[in-house]
Amino acid sequence: MHTIFFENKPRIIATGTIAGPKECAGVVGRYVDKALSEDTFGESTYEKAECKMLSYAINQAIKNANLDEKEIDLLVSGDLLNQIISASFAARDFDFPFLGVYGACSTMAESMAIAASFVNAGYYKKIVSATGSHFSSAERQYRYPLELGNTRPPQAQWTVTGAGGALIADMGGRNNQKSYPAITSATFGKVVDFGITDVNNLGAAMSPSSQSTILNHLRDTGRNADYYDLIVTGDLGALGSRILKDLMWEKGVDIEPNHVDCGEIIYNVIEDEFQGGSGAGCSAVVFNSYIMDKIKKRELNKVLFVATGALLSTVSSGQGESIPCISHAVAIENL
Amino acid sequence: MHTIFFENKPRIIATGTIAGPKECAGVVGRYVDKALSEDTFGESTYEKAECKMLSYAINQAIKNANLDEKEIDLLVSGDLLNQIISASFAARDFDFPFLGVYGACSTMAESMAIAASFVNAGYYKKIVSATGSHFSSAERQYRYPLELGNTRPPQAQWTVTGAGGALIADMGGRNNQKSYPAITSATFGKVVDFGITDVNNLGAAMSPSSQSTILNHLRDTGRNADYYDLIVTGDLGALGSRILKDLMWEKGVDIEPNHVDCGEIIYNVIEDEFQGGSGAGCSAVVFNSYIMDKIKKRELNKVLFVATGALLSTVSSGQGESIPCISHAVAIENL
Repeated sequence: MHTIFFENKPRIIATGTIAGPKECAGVVGRYVDKALSEDTFGESTYEKAECKMLSYAINQAIKNANLDEKEIDLLVSGDLLNQIISASFAARDFDFPFLGVYGACSTMAESMAIAASFVNAGYYKKIVSATGSHFSSAERQYRYPLELGNTRPPQAQWTVTGAGGALIADMGGRNNQKSYPAITSATFGKVVDFGITDVNNLGAAMSPSSQSTILNHLRDTGRNADYYDLIVTGDLGALGSRILKDLMWEKGVDIEPNHVDCGEIIYNVIEDEFQGGSGAGCSAVVFNSYIMDKIKKRELNKVLFVATGALLSTVSSGQGESIPCISHAVAIENL
Repeated sequence: MHTIFFENKPRIIATGTIAGPKECAGVVGRYVDKALSEDTFGESTYEKAECKMLSYAINQAIKNANLDEKEIDLLVSGDLLNQIISASFAARDFDFPFLGVYGACSTMAESMAIAASFVNAGYYKKIVSATGSHFSSAERQYRYPLELGNTRPPQAQWTVTGAGGALIADMGGRNNQKSYPAITSATFGKVVDFGITDVNNLGAAMSPSSQSTILNHLRDTGRNADYYDLIVTGDLGALGSRILKDLMWEKGVDIEPNHVDCGEIIYNVIEDEFQGGSGAGCSAVVFNSYIMDKIKKRELNKVLFVATGALLSTVSSGQGESIPCISHAVAIENL
């Protein structure tokens, strides 16, 4: 059994989101708390801009919940940068404990799952889970200097500049408790490696791991895929999403009618982005703004959020390793 | 309240440890499951050796518990390498879910705290928490190429080559349950930054964060420092340990009689190690071999294990940032 169940129904009482200009030209532009007009966010380096976005998202989630920083018990966060410096330095801005995680682009679901686990068990009352990414800091770290103007292959994705946070809380039976969506279960993923070594084709590398986690979730919960109004993955991109649908179909599960991928939908106009968005910020922004808006409006009532991560580094790729991947899932329901 | 309490008393039913030749010349040599005669562990790169050590420690903890891999529910692990590749690639060797964490050298306590939280809440029955480090992969990543033969300043520490894992389980009231030490509470730390920028003096940078976590733990539990037979920090080193004792003394708490630091005690003979050991593997090896042996023999019955981490990266230091630090604590008791 990979799935854990939350009988006390921890609630997502608020979210906070911020995204760059390129991202806000797309679907999330109308839903984020802050749309940046320039991607440096007034900072001198892209890494500092990334950290500031993450700090903004955490702070905004607390504000949107009408809470004070003093009322927060814990931050669960991580990011893509070496030694998760965005999360660690963002955590320095706050006076509550910090639990650092690393799940590459699966971090949003991983941190939500931990937060829901802790709130459900009664350890803490109010936890912020958050992550983010920045196109330019990711390019610099994982790929080439931007100044080089490298061309990108058609299977590539574009790292999202943005951050998102969710405030997960036990509302202690307050009257309005049921108005907030509940996290009802979480499925932690296994590492799945299909031997793909192309670091420009992370969608293909990650899709078998998302298949594994979704199948385990459905098995553990005894549900069919159509139980959910939406199975939202992130960030497989267009190609990875197609591969996932095929892989699920091979196992006799049709997710074609109710599946979207955060990476596939984040950019309206595709120029250099090819397969769409990626990065820990991709699913963090899309889920916490656009998808959460539809959940709060009850246009969606049962959502399985499956964030997907590629666990490579420049060193592992340089040493000829293939790309192990992981996906974590959380079920969010209006009930 | 930063501390969470585990009423169902998750137990450490076994540990697995491995360490390099330099480490095994010291106090842990008699206690580890495997003492390496050469630090490459038969691998072609130091990174692969680090991953293999971590995988060994996980596997050995399972074996020492007389369990089969199939009975394990979850691995909670992380390490110092960029994108925690040692943990991610080690997790690939196993067929159970993986939760990746990053807390630099605080990882052993962080992963034990999460594992105990999940077992106590009844989400999973058997969880392995583990971490490790390797001198040569850490030097390559954080400092200089080994071939350069850089001299080290006297305040420096030496990254431990080794790995340790603990199997944390709910024994479900079996007769022999009380023979295993229980994790009774955990205190997640806040990020504390005292503005230190010397990357060779991590002991000084980390000691205020360990002070913060220990004080919060004592406040939350209503205990005096002498409640514990041992308050074991890792990896402050000799200088950091002295600073911690001074900082605690300033707050009216005397830990001089019952405090040791894993970094300070791991090497018997100090040549180039100066302040002693560091690295995620330092406290992982010392706690899971030497200290756990004393707990199992009931020479120690109440231990507060406080692993300390410096959350810097080469990028953050290069951009002129100071060093934020974090310490997480778990209380282990024979009862």
